[in-house]
Amino acid sequence: MTYCVAIKLNAGLVFLSDSRTNAGLDQISTFRKMIVYEKPDDRFMVLLSAGNLSISQSVREILQVEQLKEHEDSPPITIWNAKSMFDAARVLGAAVRHVHDRDAASLKAAGVDFNVSLIFGGQIKGEGMRLFQVYSAGNFIEATPETPYFQVGESKYGKPVLDRVISPDTPLDEAAKCALVSMDSTLKSNLSVGLPLDLVVYEVDQFQTDKVVCIDEHNPYFRMLHSSWGQKLREVFDSIEHPQWKDGPTDIPLMVESGRGKPLRKITTPQERLI
Amino acid sequence: MTYCVAIKLNAGLVFLSDSRTNAGLDQISTFRKMIVYEKPDDRFMVLLSAGNLSISQSVREILQVEQLKEHEDSPPITIWNAKSMFDAARVLGAAVRHVHDRDAASLKAAGVDFNVSLIFGGQIKGEGMRLFQVYSAGNFIEATPETPYFQVGESKYGKPVLDRVISPDTPLDEAAKCALVSMDSTLKSNLSVGLPLDLVVYEVDQFQTDKVVCIDEHNPYFRMLHSSWGQKLREVFDSIEHPQWKDGPTDIPLMVESGRGKPLRKITTPQERLI
Repeated sequence: MTYCVAIKLNAGLVFLSDSRTNAGLDQISTFRKMIVYEKPDDRFMVLLSAGNLSISQSVREILQVEQLKEHEDSPPITIWNAKSMFDAARVLGAAVRHVHDRDAASLKAAGVDFNVSLIFGGQIKGEGMRLFQVYSAGNFIEATPETPYFQVGESKYGKPVLDRVISPDTPLDEAAKCALVSMDSTLKSNLSVGLPLDLVVYEVDQFQTDKVVCIDEHNPYFRMLHSSWGQKLREVFDSIEHPQWKDGPTDIPLMVESGRGKPLRKITTPQERLI
Repeated sequence: MTYCVAIKLNAGLVFLSDSRTNAGLDQISTFRKMIVYEKPDDRFMVLLSAGNLSISQSVREILQVEQLKEHEDSPPITIWNAKSMFDAARVLGAAVRHVHDRDAASLKAAGVDFNVSLIFGGQIKGEGMRLFQVYSAGNFIEATPETPYFQVGESKYGKPVLDRVISPDTPLDEAAKCALVSMDSTLKSNLSVGLPLDLVVYEVDQFQTDKVVCIDEHNPYFRMLHSSWGQKLREVFDSIEHPQWKDGPTDIPLMVESGRGKPLRKITTPQERLI
């Protein structure tokens, strides 16, 4: 599996991906899942991919030559000349459909789903930043202020901290830190996600970035974050009062008469039914 | 969906379940997912269920009358006379198979999987506590010191905190608190899990418990835990240094030459390939 997350903020974009690929537990490899497309002063785009590696690699290969034509005699649209990220996402969707046309029937015959999930975001001169999630059918959705992030792959372990921290106003470095904490929780609980990580941070209206880093187990910042987060989380956990079952010196009782639900009735004989 | 978790400690057992059931997003209901079977001084057992509600309700109904026979003339084994939790789990597995025999073909014809996940744990006089996870096929696995907890349903959001806190030595109240934090993270990120919660804590060798509580949104302890955890998590998050991209006054740089992976090469022209 994989875990990738991308966040769209007022201040910029954050992209983070792991690099573990597995075909069963006994075949684990390292593949990078992020590609950065950059034409300084014109466009900056990042693609993150999860799902079947043969599909996502083919999509990445095809994306470089994929062309959309609106009309017979209109010039072809590519990711390099698209006037909007929306059009660039359409080109990506077309690349997914191309790979589907080539491979889906054979995959199905082999009992393999056509499974790919992509995050594609960036900025093209003339419009604001945009962030899309592209599905296996080539269709896509766009991030909004209410939902400023997308995840693909093993997304659930790392979702709670994103929900707690991220809003469009979050500063870029804070969002990068949040993405790394989200990744750290995922690494902790799921073997199919692994180091090294690729992290890219893009500042609005720059059309390029030098904030590109590959983070492995020796990275001082990630090591600090990993151990601090684990240790402080534990301290917070310990600082919260244990539940008090009996009456005692507490103003936060656990056992109270509940408004909506009564305590469970126990079943004490073979004849009893709950309903 | 559902979220249920059960933890086996040296000091006892903790069981926690939510109560949301949904058949699609527009049909959400409240159903309790925990049953306590108690024969004081003889046996104490708890069943948690996730999956198709019609299946889990049928299993619960049948479990009260299910009988296993080892030989033609051996006395039937039920959950009320089983000499071990292992035998009781076998009775539960047989109940699942009974429901499968009755319903699976019709469900399949309607395009519905035979999907049920159960956690079954407790103690029968004469042996120690035991905790099992029972699958749709009626087979089951048992918790061990290395893996002292089981989850069913929406398990991923709440797994990291369990992995960080729980070991067989964890005290009972601390484990109950941990289960509630795990549930709180799940509630935060997944609409299909909802209050009220059922929490049961069992102390080893008691063969009964009065630590049974139904927790709704008015419960003082859960409200405190929910707000403290959210707020302190945020404080911990804020207390960790932001990543430093440029050289600066930090001994924990983010951008360092990586041992295993080099920073991503950017693609800057339509002709470039990564490989």
